[in-house]
Amino acid sequence: MRIGAIEAGGTKFVCGIGNEHGEMEDSISFATEHPDITMPKVISYFKDKQAEAVGIGSFGPINLKPDSPEYGYITTTPKPGWARYPFLEKLRSHFAVPFGWDTDVNAAALGEAVWGAAQGLDSCVYYTIGTGVGIGIYSGGQLVHGLVHPEGGHVPVRRHPEDPFSGMCPFHGDCLEGMASGPAIEARWKMKGHMLPPDHPAWSIEAHYIAQALTGAILMNSPQKVILGGGVMQQHQLFPLIREEVQRNLNGYVHAEEILDRIEEYIVPPGLGAQSGLYGALALGLQALEKNR
Amino acid sequence: MRIGAIEAGGTKFVCGIGNEHGEMEDSISFATEHPDITMPKVISYFKDKQAEAVGIGSFGPINLKPDSPEYGYITTTPKPGWARYPFLEKLRSHFAVPFGWDTDVNAAALGEAVWGAAQGLDSCVYYTIGTGVGIGIYSGGQLVHGLVHPEGGHVPVRRHPEDPFSGMCPFHGDCLEGMASGPAIEARWKMKGHMLPPDHPAWSIEAHYIAQALTGAILMNSPQKVILGGGVMQQHQLFPLIREEVQRNLNGYVHAEEILDRIEEYIVPPGLGAQSGLYGALALGLQALEKNR
Repeated sequence: MRIGAIEAGGTKFVCGIGNEHGEMEDSISFATEHPDITMPKVISYFKDKQAEAVGIGSFGPINLKPDSPEYGYITTTPKPGWARYPFLEKLRSHFAVPFGWDTDVNAAALGEAVWGAAQGLDSCVYYTIGTGVGIGIYSGGQLVHGLVHPEGGHVPVRRHPEDPFSGMCPFHGDCLEGMASGPAIEARWKMKGHMLPPDHPAWSIEAHYIAQALTGAILMNSPQKVILGGGVMQQHQLFPLIREEVQRNLNGYVHAEEILDRIEEYIVPPGLGAQSGLYGALALGLQALEKNR
Repeated sequence: MRIGAIEAGGTKFVCGIGNEHGEMEDSISFATEHPDITMPKVISYFKDKQAEAVGIGSFGPINLKPDSPEYGYITTTPKPGWARYPFLEKLRSHFAVPFGWDTDVNAAALGEAVWGAAQGLDSCVYYTIGTGVGIGIYSGGQLVHGLVHPEGGHVPVRRHPEDPFSGMCPFHGDCLEGMASGPAIEARWKMKGHMLPPDHPAWSIEAHYIAQALTGAILMNSPQKVILGGGVMQQHQLFPLIREEVQRNLNGYVHAEEILDRIEEYIVPPGLGAQSGLYGALALGLQALEKNR
């Protein structure tokens, strides 16, 4: 099988062609610009690839309701040209194959469940913590949708007692994204995160917010694995801080040895590194093909 | 079809016999005592009922892992006699029929999805706010399980600025349950909730905590309906307060008319009143029968 994969991120697009074994034969990456510039590159990449299906993990919010006239659209992004953009329709007009369509973070959660850190499990939560904070949820062997799709990057968080920063989410001020995104770190410390030393107090404040969100996610959805990706999580000193704080927050309430005894295998970096989203898109393409057989 | 239903609550048990159309022919209720007293009553009730399957929604935490030797057990409750109690095994030794088994709150969510306020939808979140705070999640047409099961009654919450109460959860102090359960209201105001007038400041503080938890649940799981049951929610003045505060918290971020324009149909009391759990147990029994065909 030849399956196309598109990770449509807010900053860059990655397109690839792979197979049902999770082997990526080829991939290409380019900056996300106006769709009039970006989409022709996507179409040109896949023109001679003979994909039997294509999966797309897209930045959002996106329309995931199969019965909506705007299914397959990006909805309300501030990115020029992309608001109400008929992403799926555009590709369908060029390729008559089945398409898989979900958020970039749901795709990443699926990629990790099929070929990554949550392989063999039927639930996981994937966080990306970078320019924004996004969340994908895989539960009972399927990705979570509903009214829209998970937007757990914006959950309310309790302030760290030593943090005077007021938050920078344009909607919620001091929600998780407002306090813990890469830009929030930079605004708080007047310095990019990767310039701060690993023992800087910035990281325990950062871990406080992430651990709190994870505590909520674990109590709410009881995932079998929690995966933390994105630029901020390149600061690997965060992992032990987050794990300790999650244990402290839960305080023995969830009786599961994964949390009580083996938390270093429970809250982990992505098994697929920076490629969870691309492999997830491949898995979405594969699902679309199987559904259409 | 004749399907048995058991709502095994921490305070009382309700047993019933019904059919696949959600018609409950008969039911009985008795206090939850030591299993040596309670279980014989359950067994005696079903002895001549000719149930073809039985569904159980149980207080928890419970073991839901089909491959565990303790599947069907209540796990770590402080209730005398019930910790590590083999609930399912006990019933199986008396009735050779398929059994459905889930938490009482997951059962309530299922009951509401099949015959109640979320009928026809494939996702909902059910909260019970009473002696404790519990949560059941139905997502993508199935109940959410994972490491254990949803325990969203214990999520961290931000303090209300005018609330000096320190919380009473033995595990987490000021988590949702610690701040918003019936006993928390009584401890804060030195008076039972139902004694407080509807315009008492207690209710806006209560709504603050519930709305915050709902905001998190909506952002996380994007349910198509949020259902609030339990003793505290008999205070119907809470509903408009909670709805307004959820809208204020989300601040237009989730573009769904259910939230922006019709929130009074989105955050609702149980369609089945106090019987969501019992009807959910009936639905669990029905699922078990269908799975065993």
